[in-house]
Amino acid sequence: MSERLIGSCIFGQSGGPTAVINASAYGVIKAALEAEEITKVYGAAYGIKGVLNDELYVMDEEDPEELKLLMNTPSSELGSCRYKMADPAEDDSDYKRILEIFTKYNVRYFFYNGGNDSMDTCSKISRYLESVGYPCRVIGVPKTVDNDLYGTDHCPGFGSAAKYIATTCMEIGKDARVYSGGVITVVEIMGRHAGWLAASSALATAYGSGPDLIYLPEIGFDMDRFLSDVDRVYREKGKALIAVSEGIHYADGSFVSEAKTSASDGFGHVQLGGLASMLADVIHRHTGAKTRGIELSLTQRCAAHLASKTDLEEAVGAGREAVRLAVSGMTGKMVAFERDMSGGSYCCKHVMVPLSTVANYEKKIPLDWINAEGNGLKAPFLDYVRPLIQGEPERPTVDSLPRYASLRKVLADQ
Amino acid sequence: MSERLIGSCIFGQSGGPTAVINASAYGVIKAALEAEEITKVYGAAYGIKGVLNDELYVMDEEDPEELKLLMNTPSSELGSCRYKMADPAEDDSDYKRILEIFTKYNVRYFFYNGGNDSMDTCSKISRYLESVGYPCRVIGVPKTVDNDLYGTDHCPGFGSAAKYIATTCMEIGKDARVYSGGVITVVEIMGRHAGWLAASSALATAYGSGPDLIYLPEIGFDMDRFLSDVDRVYREKGKALIAVSEGIHYADGSFVSEAKTSASDGFGHVQLGGLASMLADVIHRHTGAKTRGIELSLTQRCAAHLASKTDLEEAVGAGREAVRLAVSGMTGKMVAFERDMSGGSYCCKHVMVPLSTVANYEKKIPLDWINAEGNGLKAPFLDYVRPLIQGEPERPTVDSLPRYASLRKVLADQ
Repeated sequence: MSERLIGSCIFGQSGGPTAVINASAYGVIKAALEAEEITKVYGAAYGIKGVLNDELYVMDEEDPEELKLLMNTPSSELGSCRYKMADPAEDDSDYKRILEIFTKYNVRYFFYNGGNDSMDTCSKISRYLESVGYPCRVIGVPKTVDNDLYGTDHCPGFGSAAKYIATTCMEIGKDARVYSGGVITVVEIMGRHAGWLAASSALATAYGSGPDLIYLPEIGFDMDRFLSDVDRVYREKGKALIAVSEGIHYADGSFVSEAKTSASDGFGHVQLGGLASMLADVIHRHTGAKTRGIELSLTQRCAAHLASKTDLEEAVGAGREAVRLAVSGMTGKMVAFERDMSGGSYCCKHVMVPLSTVANYEKKIPLDWINAEGNGLKAPFLDYVRPLIQGEPERPTVDSLPRYASLRKVLADQ
Repeated sequence: MSERLIGSCIFGQSGGPTAVINASAYGVIKAALEAEEITKVYGAAYGIKGVLNDELYVMDEEDPEELKLLMNTPSSELGSCRYKMADPAEDDSDYKRILEIFTKYNVRYFFYNGGNDSMDTCSKISRYLESVGYPCRVIGVPKTVDNDLYGTDHCPGFGSAAKYIATTCMEIGKDARVYSGGVITVVEIMGRHAGWLAASSALATAYGSGPDLIYLPEIGFDMDRFLSDVDRVYREKGKALIAVSEGIHYADGSFVSEAKTSASDGFGHVQLGGLASMLADVIHRHTGAKTRGIELSLTQRCAAHLASKTDLEEAVGAGREAVRLAVSGMTGKMVAFERDMSGGSYCCKHVMVPLSTVANYEKKIPLDWINAEGNGLKAPFLDYVRPLIQGEPERPTVDSLPRYASLRKVLADQ
């Protein structure tokens, strides 16, 4: 049994926003406020930057009802950052500063909510504090719409984004086929290195109105094969709807979005604008068809109005679990999810993964979940993603518009 | 009292899709199936084209439960068209063909669901049939996300699109302000000639998380003033969120989306891509700030998952009313809405407008609803739009994804 550690905690949010990262914030903050061992709960303004800048909000000062509304609020309410910590062996100034702040506020618990880079930050801080003999429990709370975190079945944020993408692609599927004339529509979906989000558009197809073709970064992109696929669908159906991951790349690793179009297509123009409009342009030149490019953009990662109840509850649960485990003595871990289908239906339990093994790996879609042609998903992927999008959470509204949390954000005395 | 007219009816959908045009379809079809005077109910494939091509679906053959699901189904389920009818004085071939088809199927009722151009079609057909002495009652059912139809307080389709735009802008508002660093985000919203949709983003601001500046086609665009507005907001807040109508244009009428950037800004580059990314680029060059352009694209007009219950019920009601009035003897009219606030709350009643007065006029936002600076909306606009977005309709789902209508689409014997 671990020693009882008494002191305050800091919670921070890091990396890109999601529909449910604030639900994890709620889980951490609520559990920390309830924990006897935790004397004060601070929220860092803009992630680790708020620690470095001594900009901490006192969460004890917040109205509990407003805190609860964090579950209905997209994006990172405390502010986020993309901040890469140096290797402490090379430059330990940030770490010294963190130690100074932690000492100043008697911080004994640190919870950091983010993706790969954030777990790297978390891991480095954890090891540094250990190396200098400062007792502090450090736990990572996973978050990323990209679903590319290693060591966990899936990641909070992904299920809600997948649900938004599937629903939106169903709607676009209906809209893009409304006229008798031919049209080819390209939808660009987030995912720089892993195709989980674009792959989720396969749900739309499975449920009756989705893309005919899906291209992922897991498979090297070949423009000739792509154009031939599109051509075939267009000739068969008179229309085509295509979903592409923003991260699709040629065999040499260069992103399609950044490259000139393949010389073999006879178009060597430098393209401006997004991937969707670039591909729409290439297809138009190739087929003569009317084309349209659609980029789902930010809306796909922050669409709280379509949050998955499963995702939201798991996000809250991961936050609570982080506090529970830290208080019970654990440190240097990330809360991860293990899927349990042994009862015949989806069930998810928490497991702990060492931070050091999570950081800086990217989990991709298993290749045997992608069809042989490299332009669609197979049943195991649908079985994987389906449980993650289930359920509609309660959505507080005012005049039929979302009611978001309104925090006081009282700064800690400096 | 009018003569009782017995015969079949044709219903057609025309123009761009909306989240609730199929709800009007349901209203028309259900009421027509119930009407004693109507012997058979045909749905035209791809609007008036389906009449010209003798491609009619027999709605009597559909499962009533699937028809009901039309209320949950975005886009135009029977197919739509953008087809401009000739002046019959110059070329009456289409009209002769329509008369031939109407005679063949003993069509005595024609319901056409669409916007300005569709009401023009409807009006021309009505007058032609009258001129040749073919008894047929022709009623227009309004539809357009653009809300620019003359003679009606508002238009089915607009309320749901406005709700989607407001909700999405609230989410983008949260996402676009998540980092401590400065960023300027431009959101492009539909509306070629009237700014109703872009203006609806003002709801997001009124409810706590929306654009700082809104630009509409009702006000001549001035790039210098625009950049100065953006600069001011950015300096004050460190971030800026800007909503623009796709139809903003310079004083000379040329669309900003099509023009080179103003020479007075010192950038004369030809721009590719959409308006949002073009303006983001101009702002970046002017301010040096990080910028992002977002085009809401098709998703804003077909987002049935965020449909307004008020809009949906009014769409169904307009369809039912069209049938009721036609059966009772009316012809050559469009079902319109009149707002009644006399009871202290929003109430809407049907009025009939001659088709000839609706066609080809575009209703714009009253200038006194736009602020003096021409970059935002005043309270009367919010009071106007608020009632139209209210309520959440029942949303049938399967596995948490929308369950759309699956029609048999049995073709009439040719």
